[in-house]
Amino acid sequence: MQEIKGGVTAPAGFLAAGVHADIKGKGGTKKDVAVLFSRVPCAAAGVYTTNLVKAAPVVLSQERTAAGQLQAVVVNSGNANACTGEQGMADARTMADLTAKALGLEPAAVAVASTGVIGVPLPMDRVKAGIARAAASIAPDGAQAAAEAIMTTDTYDKQYAVQFDLGGATVTIGAMAKGSGMIHPNMGTMLAFLTTDADVDPATLHVALKASTEKSFNMITVDGDTSTNDCLIALANGMARNPKVVMGSAHYNTFAAALDHVLIHLAKEIARDGEGATKLMEMRVKGAPTVQDARTAAKAVCGSMLTKAAVFGEDANWGRVLCALGYSGATFDPARVDLWLGDLPMMKAGAPLPFDEEAALAILKEKTVVFTADLHSGTAEATAWGCDLTYDYVKINGAYRT
Amino acid sequence: MQEIKGGVTAPAGFLAAGVHADIKGKGGTKKDVAVLFSRVPCAAAGVYTTNLVKAAPVVLSQERTAAGQLQAVVVNSGNANACTGEQGMADARTMADLTAKALGLEPAAVAVASTGVIGVPLPMDRVKAGIARAAASIAPDGAQAAAEAIMTTDTYDKQYAVQFDLGGATVTIGAMAKGSGMIHPNMGTMLAFLTTDADVDPATLHVALKASTEKSFNMITVDGDTSTNDCLIALANGMARNPKVVMGSAHYNTFAAALDHVLIHLAKEIARDGEGATKLMEMRVKGAPTVQDARTAAKAVCGSMLTKAAVFGEDANWGRVLCALGYSGATFDPARVDLWLGDLPMMKAGAPLPFDEEAALAILKEKTVVFTADLHSGTAEATAWGCDLTYDYVKINGAYRT
Repeated sequence: MQEIKGGVTAPAGFLAAGVHADIKGKGGTKKDVAVLFSRVPCAAAGVYTTNLVKAAPVVLSQERTAAGQLQAVVVNSGNANACTGEQGMADARTMADLTAKALGLEPAAVAVASTGVIGVPLPMDRVKAGIARAAASIAPDGAQAAAEAIMTTDTYDKQYAVQFDLGGATVTIGAMAKGSGMIHPNMGTMLAFLTTDADVDPATLHVALKASTEKSFNMITVDGDTSTNDCLIALANGMARNPKVVMGSAHYNTFAAALDHVLIHLAKEIARDGEGATKLMEMRVKGAPTVQDARTAAKAVCGSMLTKAAVFGEDANWGRVLCALGYSGATFDPARVDLWLGDLPMMKAGAPLPFDEEAALAILKEKTVVFTADLHSGTAEATAWGCDLTYDYVKINGAYRT
Repeated sequence: MQEIKGGVTAPAGFLAAGVHADIKGKGGTKKDVAVLFSRVPCAAAGVYTTNLVKAAPVVLSQERTAAGQLQAVVVNSGNANACTGEQGMADARTMADLTAKALGLEPAAVAVASTGVIGVPLPMDRVKAGIARAAASIAPDGAQAAAEAIMTTDTYDKQYAVQFDLGGATVTIGAMAKGSGMIHPNMGTMLAFLTTDADVDPATLHVALKASTEKSFNMITVDGDTSTNDCLIALANGMARNPKVVMGSAHYNTFAAALDHVLIHLAKEIARDGEGATKLMEMRVKGAPTVQDARTAAKAVCGSMLTKAAVFGEDANWGRVLCALGYSGATFDPARVDLWLGDLPMMKAGAPLPFDEEAALAILKEKTVVFTADLHSGTAEATAWGCDLTYDYVKINGAYRT
């Protein structure tokens, strides 16, 4: 497997665009409408927020990916179109209709995603103008503009693409995502889009996408707030002409491994660029009785406000890690736990070890801080990612609407 | 029911003391060892953290309250005696033994509680000296010193006492608590102690205490981190000579109502004085299908980092409240929800309402910010309390050990 450039337009047959439509009505030049298009119909799958309160575009896209075929996605940032009642549903449908018309597709072939402030109706005049311009400017090198257009408080765009051999054919997977705040995905993440020229049927794509999401986006947290707008949509257009990927085959495993690689990469980027973050936090749990225990335990640590604040302050307060493991709901015996900060042992069989404060500080000063816990209660393991809690998180979210 | 002064020594027969023992080894004068004593044996009950990782004193006190009788409690702040292995258990027992000896009691009559940094062995020499001095100085007006001695990052001491008639006898309940950070109680809270001269058997006291805890300490959150040291211990010495309180009687209801009143008061004080907090946040949920749904939903909002940051920033970003209700796990139909900020309607039947930004700002500038959601999905209701997320929370917890 090889990393390549090109993001969502790296796979054959995909075009994209991103334009400034001034969704927030505050001028500037920030791109905020993106269109993603495949020259041929795609097998499609999606995973979406489990929040009961779902944004209108989530409801619409969930219906449309359920049918297993899509050819385009339209996305806006600056407004989540969530908690907007029936008008919001009508607006999401209008976004799909306009995109379909501009691209010569049926409306049912277009999924919609939105991200931004909740509870404010979309400024449809500006949205319409933006869609028209974005659809008119789609191009095979449009991935960069699209990735920028879906950002909100992200400090950099998140794109990735890999190439690998699948039964003699070269298959490409591209992806883009945005994250930052309200990040505690449960079935998807804020917004992520994956394209591939692999030939894979919708049901297989869905299974692979769900399994991969469990190891990637569902293992990150920025603030414990599961968004109303989480969505991950995958489009596979088959243009690589590989032997068709079906469940249970060796090709499936190759494809799934590539998918894991891409989604874990993007998930870590989202955690690293969490609102206000200065550090990526990685929690590895091993020796858990089940994978679910390992995941629950690892994610609790990354979600612990106290641990996050200690990482920001570069304070080796490892007791907070153990505290979070303890309340996570995972099953284990605290008297058996070993704990490391980086490669420095902090605790052995439930009892504290003396440690070198300077060595601990050196580890905490790195841009990535890794904790490892061996629960000695089984053989399952999992890794979760998060970020530190900083003054800037408070600043960004104390005045988000203004 | 009448509010009176005197905290834990307000009920007949209770004495207390608090002294400076320099547990942190940093000098100063901060009191950090407290002793609470009743002239006669007490019916006792306790509720404790559900964290798998339990501090040594929690393990010990849980055993001892299970027997239903206690006569004294010894408490230290500055060190949690958590994650300290077998040495920690031995130290907790030594604390009880020394206190018992000084007060002429059996060790089994003494409960122990600790709060402070995790994973550092107790400085037993200083602890021993502190216990000796505290036990020697217990007095009927010692509540203030004891309440100060249990504080960590609390900015003020938390005490309360009420008097009420119970079958012709005047009964008093006193209490003290400490909170601040690592506050997301699940069966108890950081540390809280309740004294009463009511005559009540241990089983009844336990039932009343658990029921009351569900409505008070278990409905507050500061940071979602359930401590390793949460404990609430109640001592009832019977000196008020009231008709004995037994389950199911009218007297039980009177006693339980007073208990609710006292614990809810203290729980709100803990939320208000959460680490770095500038505001108390109150979330009222009504129209829920079950009380558990109402509690879950209300507590999720108070735990939402995004909502907490918006309250700090005085930003009427009510969509975050709805988002948190949605991911809470409570069952309801988002299309029916009405939402208010103070008395200002923000949402009706799932759709946003235009609102006066200046009126919203005036409500957000108050020291207590109340949100109310009517889920229109049943008749159950609950209230939760929390605090805003501020720069000072990050500051306090970025360098807690130093």
